[in-house]
Amino acid sequence: MTSPRVVIVGGGFAGIEAARALAKYAETLAPVDIILVDRQNHHCFQPLLYQVATAALSPADIAWPIRSILNRQPNLRVIMAKVTGVDTQARIVHTDELDLPYDYLVLASGVTHAYFGHDEWESVAPGLKQLEDARHIRARFLLAFERAEIADDEALRRKLLTFVIVGGGPTGVEMAGSMAEVAKETLKSDFREIDPRMSRIVLIEAGPRILPALPENLSNYAQRALEKMGVEVLVNTKVTDCDADGVSLGDTRIDASTIVWAAGVVASPAAQWIHAEHDRAGRIMVAPDLSVPGLQNVFVAGDLASVKDQDGKPVPGIAPAAKQMGRYIGRLIAARVAGETDNKPFVYSHAGDLATVGRRAAVVKIGRFELTGFIGWLFWGIAHIYFLIGLRNRFVVAVTWLWSYLTFRRGARLISTGDNNSVVIPEGARRSRVNPRSV
Amino acid sequence: MTSPRVVIVGGGFAGIEAARALAKYAETLAPVDIILVDRQNHHCFQPLLYQVATAALSPADIAWPIRSILNRQPNLRVIMAKVTGVDTQARIVHTDELDLPYDYLVLASGVTHAYFGHDEWESVAPGLKQLEDARHIRARFLLAFERAEIADDEALRRKLLTFVIVGGGPTGVEMAGSMAEVAKETLKSDFREIDPRMSRIVLIEAGPRILPALPENLSNYAQRALEKMGVEVLVNTKVTDCDADGVSLGDTRIDASTIVWAAGVVASPAAQWIHAEHDRAGRIMVAPDLSVPGLQNVFVAGDLASVKDQDGKPVPGIAPAAKQMGRYIGRLIAARVAGETDNKPFVYSHAGDLATVGRRAAVVKIGRFELTGFIGWLFWGIAHIYFLIGLRNRFVVAVTWLWSYLTFRRGARLISTGDNNSVVIPEGARRSRVNPRSV
Repeated sequence: MTSPRVVIVGGGFAGIEAARALAKYAETLAPVDIILVDRQNHHCFQPLLYQVATAALSPADIAWPIRSILNRQPNLRVIMAKVTGVDTQARIVHTDELDLPYDYLVLASGVTHAYFGHDEWESVAPGLKQLEDARHIRARFLLAFERAEIADDEALRRKLLTFVIVGGGPTGVEMAGSMAEVAKETLKSDFREIDPRMSRIVLIEAGPRILPALPENLSNYAQRALEKMGVEVLVNTKVTDCDADGVSLGDTRIDASTIVWAAGVVASPAAQWIHAEHDRAGRIMVAPDLSVPGLQNVFVAGDLASVKDQDGKPVPGIAPAAKQMGRYIGRLIAARVAGETDNKPFVYSHAGDLATVGRRAAVVKIGRFELTGFIGWLFWGIAHIYFLIGLRNRFVVAVTWLWSYLTFRRGARLISTGDNNSVVIPEGARRSRVNPRSV
Repeated sequence: MTSPRVVIVGGGFAGIEAARALAKYAETLAPVDIILVDRQNHHCFQPLLYQVATAALSPADIAWPIRSILNRQPNLRVIMAKVTGVDTQARIVHTDELDLPYDYLVLASGVTHAYFGHDEWESVAPGLKQLEDARHIRARFLLAFERAEIADDEALRRKLLTFVIVGGGPTGVEMAGSMAEVAKETLKSDFREIDPRMSRIVLIEAGPRILPALPENLSNYAQRALEKMGVEVLVNTKVTDCDADGVSLGDTRIDASTIVWAAGVVASPAAQWIHAEHDRAGRIMVAPDLSVPGLQNVFVAGDLASVKDQDGKPVPGIAPAAKQMGRYIGRLIAARVAGETDNKPFVYSHAGDLATVGRRAAVVKIGRFELTGFIGWLFWGIAHIYFLIGLRNRFVVAVTWLWSYLTFRRGARLISTGDNNSVVIPEGARRSRVNPRSV
């Protein structure tokens, strides 16, 4: 007799935790065959992606091969392929490479950026979900200074040195703070024709305050800290248009050659694969045991799941929530396979919220504890290093951060995207002519 | 009165050293304005590129922004642009971004891979000169194992797990040793359907022995060391054809999905820009003071220059030679600007040759000293860390090597090219179907 087959789609926090929990509990309960499928070969530590985008860390510092993370589990196989659909009748996951029959299915394919019906903004305002996105934003960010150095037109130079971040959640706040640090400190001695410290960094939030998940006093602290670093923070401000030359905010216009999108997410198309009920963002509505209503052997974990906590508030799309769901599902499937029918519902336990604003400034709320400033920043750093996978990554990131802190330098200032055409350079900058004698 | 303008084309070893020497000597002699132009924003430490290609190091560990290396020199400006031509009459360097007039010109734009009239081989047998090349080869190398894991056809699987390196110079030898290490050690526990230790790694050299720049006993040692690691070394063997499915060696055929080209170089088109006399590989024939005959204010440095040493042997295309030429030219131009006319010819001083074969094995020849084995390997490692730019890079590379040595792991196993279409995947592998129940 063959063991029941569990297919897990996605190697993010939820998928990895589901695989680990399932492999662990299956050992003592009943054997299973596990397949984890992802279109990338690596698990990416998304909370630090913004540091790759702003040249502080290398992609490999925050990523790890999925099969290397899970190579201790003999009952687990990792497959690199892109899922194209699911046949819930025949119980088969279709991929671009091969078909994967399943007895149990765990969907954990996550979310991507949403442009609220303006998909045409994507090419000018890239978001930050994968390593490729980070490398792309890093290239655009650094290239803007290179172009500004050789631009001969003052308006063009101002546009090249204006950076707009749309969305005041943790990603937007961390990007804005980090970009300000690069412009004001890291690059300050490297150019001759421009002064990078004159860069304009604008953070735009549609709601009344940045970091809305945190209490108001911490939002205010973060805004003041950003402003002290020279970031312009605009709240209650909606972006009405984005193009290669800047953003429109109703009647106001900001000319900018670099726009980063951190304003919203939409689920991967998993709801369509299984014809499940979903919310406006495409997140699948799940039963209390995180299964899909009507499909008892299909579970949803991580950002892809639309789940409420005990107070009826939506469970946030953060790493600890994804891990908790993954662990719950792994354990539940192991129990089911072993014939247990007890179905304790999933209960989300919120550990806290935190975001770093820049050098020596972060906001942390854990239960009733609140931390800001240097202590909050230290806590933030230690927590992130602790959750990184792999001893080497922890060590290299810790050393790199210490080095950056002491020298104000950044170690990963490479402009390289693999495909230079994908970096949008304003046409004006490409054709500008300076009088080189004027150096 | 404005100072004389020196334009340096290329931010490799030769260009950086020329800029440094010129800036230094100009301080005490006579002021100059220096412009260094490169199409990349970074200087790349090419001797370790193969370690990026084989997932040991991250791109940023061996690269550094050119403007950051040179930011102490107030009389020096760095411009990121692609040179498109030189007008030696008007004394202007044309780029895709702007025109750069010069009084003195230093050409140090290096070399790229040569396919000896078979440019169509480039897409199937990429070479290793830039960071993008290394990232591309890394993706292909790692992807071959991923495809083999899901291939259902034994012949296809064998083809996917066969890696051919063409060219037995230091780059080819180092690539072959490093690939063997990854296949036999790093990946050995990570797959379920394939055993990466069964991979076939073939190093092909047209001449009678690998590492021809070294004495015969060291060549033999290196070949034995490679063979002990499981690398097949074929000498006196010419590649007669390359395609997506393998290489032809006259009547013999090796099916392989991954081919790396380390067999030859051709100079960048600088000789055509200035209509200079050049050798078969496009290297510019220079006068004893490294100037171009007939163009007293144009100098050539590094791999781009065709220079003979005192014994009449060609100066090799290695980093120390490039640095010596750059330094000589920088000093010479500073002296000329100051009115000195003494023209001591360039004299190349050969420090030695070295290549690493793999874990605890390297060959080193410095003067009459020869080192092999563990001592040679240690010497190689210390020498390379010493020559890396930047304290952080030295430290991170040293730590990463120590960690890899102790754990057999590799920290940068990311499949990411920015443009997935550029990774050639054999059509058969993409369409294969396995019976997943057979796991």
